[in-house]
Amino acid sequence: MNKTVLRACLVVALSTALFLSHLANATQVTVEQWDIFQVELEGPKTGNPFVDVRFSAVFENASKKIEVPGFYDGNGKYIVRFMPDMVGQWRYETLSNRWPLTGKRGTFDVNRASKNNHGPVQVHNTYHFAYADGTSYKQIGTTIYNWLDTPIEVQQQTLQTLATSPFNKARMLLTQQPTPYRNKFQPALWPYQGKPPYDWDFTRFNPDFFRHYEKRIGQLRDMGIEADVILFNPYGKFGFNSMDEVNDELYVRYVVARFTAYRNIWWSVANEYDFVRTKTDEDWDRIGQLIQKIDPYNHLRSIHNGKLLFNHNKPWITHVSMQNGVAVQSPGAAEIYRDVYRKPVVYDEIKYEGDAKFRWADLSAQELVHRFWAGTIAGTYVGHGDYFNIEGEDTWTSFGGKLTGNSSPRLAFLRDIMQQGPKDGIDPIDKWQNPDIGGVAGEYYLFYFGHEKPQDWTFSLYKQGISDGMRFKVDIIDTWDMTITPVEGEFVTQKFDNYQYTDAKQRVVKLPGKSGIAIRVTNLDVNANKTKANELIDPNVH
Amino acid sequence: MNKTVLRACLVVALSTALFLSHLANATQVTVEQWDIFQVELEGPKTGNPFVDVRFSAVFENASKKIEVPGFYDGNGKYIVRFMPDMVGQWRYETLSNRWPLTGKRGTFDVNRASKNNHGPVQVHNTYHFAYADGTSYKQIGTTIYNWLDTPIEVQQQTLQTLATSPFNKARMLLTQQPTPYRNKFQPALWPYQGKPPYDWDFTRFNPDFFRHYEKRIGQLRDMGIEADVILFNPYGKFGFNSMDEVNDELYVRYVVARFTAYRNIWWSVANEYDFVRTKTDEDWDRIGQLIQKIDPYNHLRSIHNGKLLFNHNKPWITHVSMQNGVAVQSPGAAEIYRDVYRKPVVYDEIKYEGDAKFRWADLSAQELVHRFWAGTIAGTYVGHGDYFNIEGEDTWTSFGGKLTGNSSPRLAFLRDIMQQGPKDGIDPIDKWQNPDIGGVAGEYYLFYFGHEKPQDWTFSLYKQGISDGMRFKVDIIDTWDMTITPVEGEFVTQKFDNYQYTDAKQRVVKLPGKSGIAIRVTNLDVNANKTKANELIDPNVH
Repeated sequence: MNKTVLRACLVVALSTALFLSHLANATQVTVEQWDIFQVELEGPKTGNPFVDVRFSAVFENASKKIEVPGFYDGNGKYIVRFMPDMVGQWRYETLSNRWPLTGKRGTFDVNRASKNNHGPVQVHNTYHFAYADGTSYKQIGTTIYNWLDTPIEVQQQTLQTLATSPFNKARMLLTQQPTPYRNKFQPALWPYQGKPPYDWDFTRFNPDFFRHYEKRIGQLRDMGIEADVILFNPYGKFGFNSMDEVNDELYVRYVVARFTAYRNIWWSVANEYDFVRTKTDEDWDRIGQLIQKIDPYNHLRSIHNGKLLFNHNKPWITHVSMQNGVAVQSPGAAEIYRDVYRKPVVYDEIKYEGDAKFRWADLSAQELVHRFWAGTIAGTYVGHGDYFNIEGEDTWTSFGGKLTGNSSPRLAFLRDIMQQGPKDGIDPIDKWQNPDIGGVAGEYYLFYFGHEKPQDWTFSLYKQGISDGMRFKVDIIDTWDMTITPVEGEFVTQKFDNYQYTDAKQRVVKLPGKSGIAIRVTNLDVNANKTKANELIDPNVH
Repeated sequence: MNKTVLRACLVVALSTALFLSHLANATQVTVEQWDIFQVELEGPKTGNPFVDVRFSAVFENASKKIEVPGFYDGNGKYIVRFMPDMVGQWRYETLSNRWPLTGKRGTFDVNRASKNNHGPVQVHNTYHFAYADGTSYKQIGTTIYNWLDTPIEVQQQTLQTLATSPFNKARMLLTQQPTPYRNKFQPALWPYQGKPPYDWDFTRFNPDFFRHYEKRIGQLRDMGIEADVILFNPYGKFGFNSMDEVNDELYVRYVVARFTAYRNIWWSVANEYDFVRTKTDEDWDRIGQLIQKIDPYNHLRSIHNGKLLFNHNKPWITHVSMQNGVAVQSPGAAEIYRDVYRKPVVYDEIKYEGDAKFRWADLSAQELVHRFWAGTIAGTYVGHGDYFNIEGEDTWTSFGGKLTGNSSPRLAFLRDIMQQGPKDGIDPIDKWQNPDIGGVAGEYYLFYFGHEKPQDWTFSLYKQGISDGMRFKVDIIDTWDMTITPVEGEFVTQKFDNYQYTDAKQRVVKLPGKSGIAIRVTNLDVNANKTKANELIDPNVH
């Protein structure tokens, strides 16, 4: 026991490799809220530590007590990581079935989060997301499935591209798919010990692989990007999707223990789950429920479909991760899944921007931007892909690197508009009459004309939240040219009929007669971030 | 006991009031398959027979044994009705907690069903319906909520209208809603004993009300119309939607015992369930599960929504009964619920044809017909409503009587096309690329252009089920003018690209350049009723 070295490491930012080491009795360690406090211990190397050794720690402060799983990091090193959600003093005590790893105690202080740290993203207002500190999170996702299996210089380039992109979520695979990068597939690191690419010991992980993956998660976090990590996929034929239940559980527990303290982690149980012919719905339920049980921080959990939808009403699913090739062509279709699941809907795959020979990767930039707008108006969120007929038809969405398409500046423009819009999210205003209007009744509206090319628009608002004499300003938004043109003067509501209010002077707004135009209507007297005035029930349905 | 008279009544058709009475030992009674065999007994009149007396019968033949609930019909009469699903000899024995009603036995013969009797409708091929004898059922529904609360002559007129209409399903309320018929609301019959309209004894039913209701169900059956009976509704303020759990159960058990032997019964647990503010989702689950448990024939069960969707994934729900004001505007939106629920989707409320001042009843006939076509192409089914600004704005859909709108001949035309089409139903052919095509791959296609007005169409079929050299015929369908125009000659497939086959001579079909046009493509060498050749999975999605 006296050989044991207790090190508590505060990982401020793995990307900058800043470690603070200390003995348990040394100066009090501090960590900021929602960052990582890490305890490292030396323990047994014999046998199979990944399987034989149980290791966790209980963290508590004045008001709560949480048991957090630890993991074996190789070379006799055991680690437990903690993401504190409250400021003030915390203490911990380790638990294990091995003497060197149990009963170790310590204390540390948690300071208020710094400016760009808002905590983990959670479900907010039923259909939307917010960070733990209440800051709203407007999802503009992208997909970079295999970027961690590319040469280091491509990974660096990917980070540089992300740094100047609008994306605040990246979907990425954990285990490899066999897509060749420039015709040679040689991942530097594999998740298991064994003989690549087929011969694995599914009871022994490769800590180098995970340390590298974690470094990238940390770098995404530091750029404000959520890491939507996909645990299973149908693509690789290396054995990772045909393990048995015991090894599946070992895998999930190891991944959760390693990653869960990263505040930007989202769990995507599978990509195109229904194409994984080696698992059943019951398997996915068991895996999803396991994550729900063992993740101390309740990070967001989803499962992404191929052709067959999972039952997203299941309680372990926090939000809908949807592949659908047509739903976001119009807000009226896009909003349907909201009603069905009563959860946030993220269209993670809507076909990619590209010129590939595949139908799932041949959208024009205009069409991709249109789909983002249609999804936004519907009160849902959309994901981007970029897949062009260069480099063996695998650009950004397979390997990262550079973006080829032209949608991303327009998505940045959309994101700015979302950020300036209602804090609690955009919802359909009058979904069964005019689904092309989203906002918050009485306060904020986006009218979106899609592929239509109207020459003008008569100011008119649905009655909910409106009474005579309310004052609004109107902006014309060009979603492609990225301009916002204010319309002069104000618009004052006056009842028009049983359903609509128009401007008292029946003002008509001239429009440029092109596609991709939206109109933003903002209440001049009300903070657009106020909560909704009324329920969405229309008493006139019968 | 010796005072007991045992009568077994075969109700061939209540509408024609044909009863065959006999003593148990008399000549063997015969009934046809899926018709009603009825046992009537005299029993106690004292106390409250609706609550105090348990009464049922066990029916068995050589291979099965079914317990069927009976009911008190007033005046000391107890009835149990049975719908035999197999030909041959059956026997029964009554069960009761009262001596005069228990241990009565008898036998009867079941003959093969006559020509127009196909048995009850069931789910078929996941998204579709078929009668028990395998005949396909193509739903063209209508809504006549309160037709049984109108004067008898209006009810007669309703039956006459239905007799010449395309409708094969009618949605109808069981308990009253307070809509005035020609400004005076005086239902002749109420479901409970008590003092109308508010003072009821919820433990004593009014058998006259139910006998009348049953007579109408039987008349619909004899016209080939399914009766989609709505057990609860939010509209009436007479107390029927605010009973307690015990009285809800008594009600449901009484209704099921009386109606379930009618082969054309569908159970709609509620209309606009979410507007019934006196019940919770758990209440609806309990009621739905109760029906599932006590209905010996497993008739179709659904629950219809207002603004908030029920979780139709629940196992007690056999098909989706949807109100949605926009989904059937396009097949791409309409098909979404199929994927979600993996059950038949019936759009029972899509707004009504009408000129009412309400937005839910102002569709043109053209638009209603368009929505039926859009729903059909999407592999779903649609319901009709007719609501014009005459007679106090309550025409057909409230009270029956006559149809005012112009959609119904076009729905008859559509129904004929559906009947001639694939027996196992129309499914989306290429849902994420071109959702405007429904059919059976390789055999039968409907291309629908909706509001578009194409001048021509290049023959082109998605690759699934297609190979070079297959021969097809093409018809141009005008959905409004109700014409089917065959295109001369045949079309022979030739591979065009990775996804499509065109005609070998690149034939182009001239179209009339108006809206509401469909194209029917039929394989000249294959019976359109064959099962599907391939799965719907596209291997090119990753």
